[in-house]
Amino acid sequence: MKLEYDLSKLTIEAERDHPNAFRAEVYISDGFYPHFHRNPEIYLVYDGTVTVTINNVEYVLHGGQAMCINSYDIHSYKIDGLARVGFVNIGLNYTNNFNSLYPKRSLPTELLDVDKNKPLFDFIEQIKGTIAENSDRRRLLYYTYVNYILYLIVDTYGTSTTKAQTKHSTRNIVQYIYENAEKNLTLNSIAKEFGYSPGSLSHFFSRYIRIDFRTFLSDIRMQKVWELRDNPDYADRSIADLAILCGFNSVSSYYRACRRYDSNNNHVQEHKTTDD
Amino acid sequence: MKLEYDLSKLTIEAERDHPNAFRAEVYISDGFYPHFHRNPEIYLVYDGTVTVTINNVEYVLHGGQAMCINSYDIHSYKIDGLARVGFVNIGLNYTNNFNSLYPKRSLPTELLDVDKNKPLFDFIEQIKGTIAENSDRRRLLYYTYVNYILYLIVDTYGTSTTKAQTKHSTRNIVQYIYENAEKNLTLNSIAKEFGYSPGSLSHFFSRYIRIDFRTFLSDIRMQKVWELRDNPDYADRSIADLAILCGFNSVSSYYRACRRYDSNNNHVQEHKTTDD
Repeated sequence: MKLEYDLSKLTIEAERDHPNAFRAEVYISDGFYPHFHRNPEIYLVYDGTVTVTINNVEYVLHGGQAMCINSYDIHSYKIDGLARVGFVNIGLNYTNNFNSLYPKRSLPTELLDVDKNKPLFDFIEQIKGTIAENSDRRRLLYYTYVNYILYLIVDTYGTSTTKAQTKHSTRNIVQYIYENAEKNLTLNSIAKEFGYSPGSLSHFFSRYIRIDFRTFLSDIRMQKVWELRDNPDYADRSIADLAILCGFNSVSSYYRACRRYDSNNNHVQEHKTTDD
Repeated sequence: MKLEYDLSKLTIEAERDHPNAFRAEVYISDGFYPHFHRNPEIYLVYDGTVTVTINNVEYVLHGGQAMCINSYDIHSYKIDGLARVGFVNIGLNYTNNFNSLYPKRSLPTELLDVDKNKPLFDFIEQIKGTIAENSDRRRLLYYTYVNYILYLIVDTYGTSTTKAQTKHSTRNIVQYIYENAEKNLTLNSIAKEFGYSPGSLSHFFSRYIRIDFRTFLSDIRMQKVWELRDNPDYADRSIADLAILCGFNSVSSYYRACRRYDSNNNHVQEHKTTDD
């Protein structure tokens, strides 16, 4: 049950990062290591105290407080002992109503007003255990959930201006690698893209992403293979085809990545432990 | 309180037909005269018996049964005595999730399974009295409501193939007039468009729409003026400008239409009577 808080490992949570994913959980946690995903997340502390780190900025959350975590933000949860927490992983496809109603706005980061958060906390408690697979057909229901969650947040906190990101922000580098993973990316080519020396970028990886670049890239490619595998448009393609399409130079490199991922996957399994 | 069931009058319910409108009501009704709107509607019979006529086809609904009414369908409700009924008027803008999930599909017309309808009837009862104005800012909440209502319907009844409409169907003629109302439409030009003789079209109007063509066209133009009046993009235009833009040949014709509309508007007021 005890999860080792292992800062040297960063996982992209491939299996829950589909654009049609939706997942709401409430459970007893002892923390979670640095990770990121494309889908935005709402993280809620029901009881206890959690230090949330987002792109190396720390926030201390107490019971009744919550945060919105944007796409590609690297975040981790540090807990001294145990805390009762919840999260909602929101498939990007379900955010289109918000995006069209509030163009160029994003969700507020800090949801700290315990009293005003009550309807949000109650609603997540009510739908906890909901897990949508990519092929799940109840998408109108997930649209319902997402719109109601975003309604509760915006009604209390309003929206936030999307901050002009500096070109070298963590989120932008992660997103750039994510969106170009099928290309022949190297530390050198990325350093050039962001105006860094390769040495500085290497430093950036060890400081913010805490995983070596090749493993990071390979995890992202593996996630993309998994997404295409579930996509009906690619039903007639072999895994070997998909591996090449996503940037692996052979199907063996793909299976190597899977084996490494599986051997670390117990972290994700532990994360899923719920309290009921 | 008694509503005269006046088949000679057809009103387009201008004030509730905005694309951002949302309205859910449950009330005691003694019927409603033939009318149409661009927004789709769900009509529910809680107690009693209602004869629903849609484009001249009759359905008899008992307590616990409901129907989906498509855009531009001409529909009326005939009740022998009183019935407890509900309706939901769904602003077209809120149907985009359904439309992208189910391209080329529409809602099923008949929702007749009393047991399976229970969650839908309970939910409408729960949100009855919700009325969104065009300028209402709680649109994420209306997206929530609409997606949940459509989820409950699709989960029970599936979707329906959008029937290939014959070119001269009632809905298509009404829609054509609606979409071209600012042009110089005449019985002759519309007859030509749909391959009718002007005499047949006149017969069509008296049989299906039960209102003379000039009044019908003028009601539609008036509705469009009202929509633009509420649209911030047209805030600097005078009513005279808007009247011309919507197809009236003078501002006086617009005010004439309003006076006639107001003198018949008691029907709409009666319709709004609720039971609580």
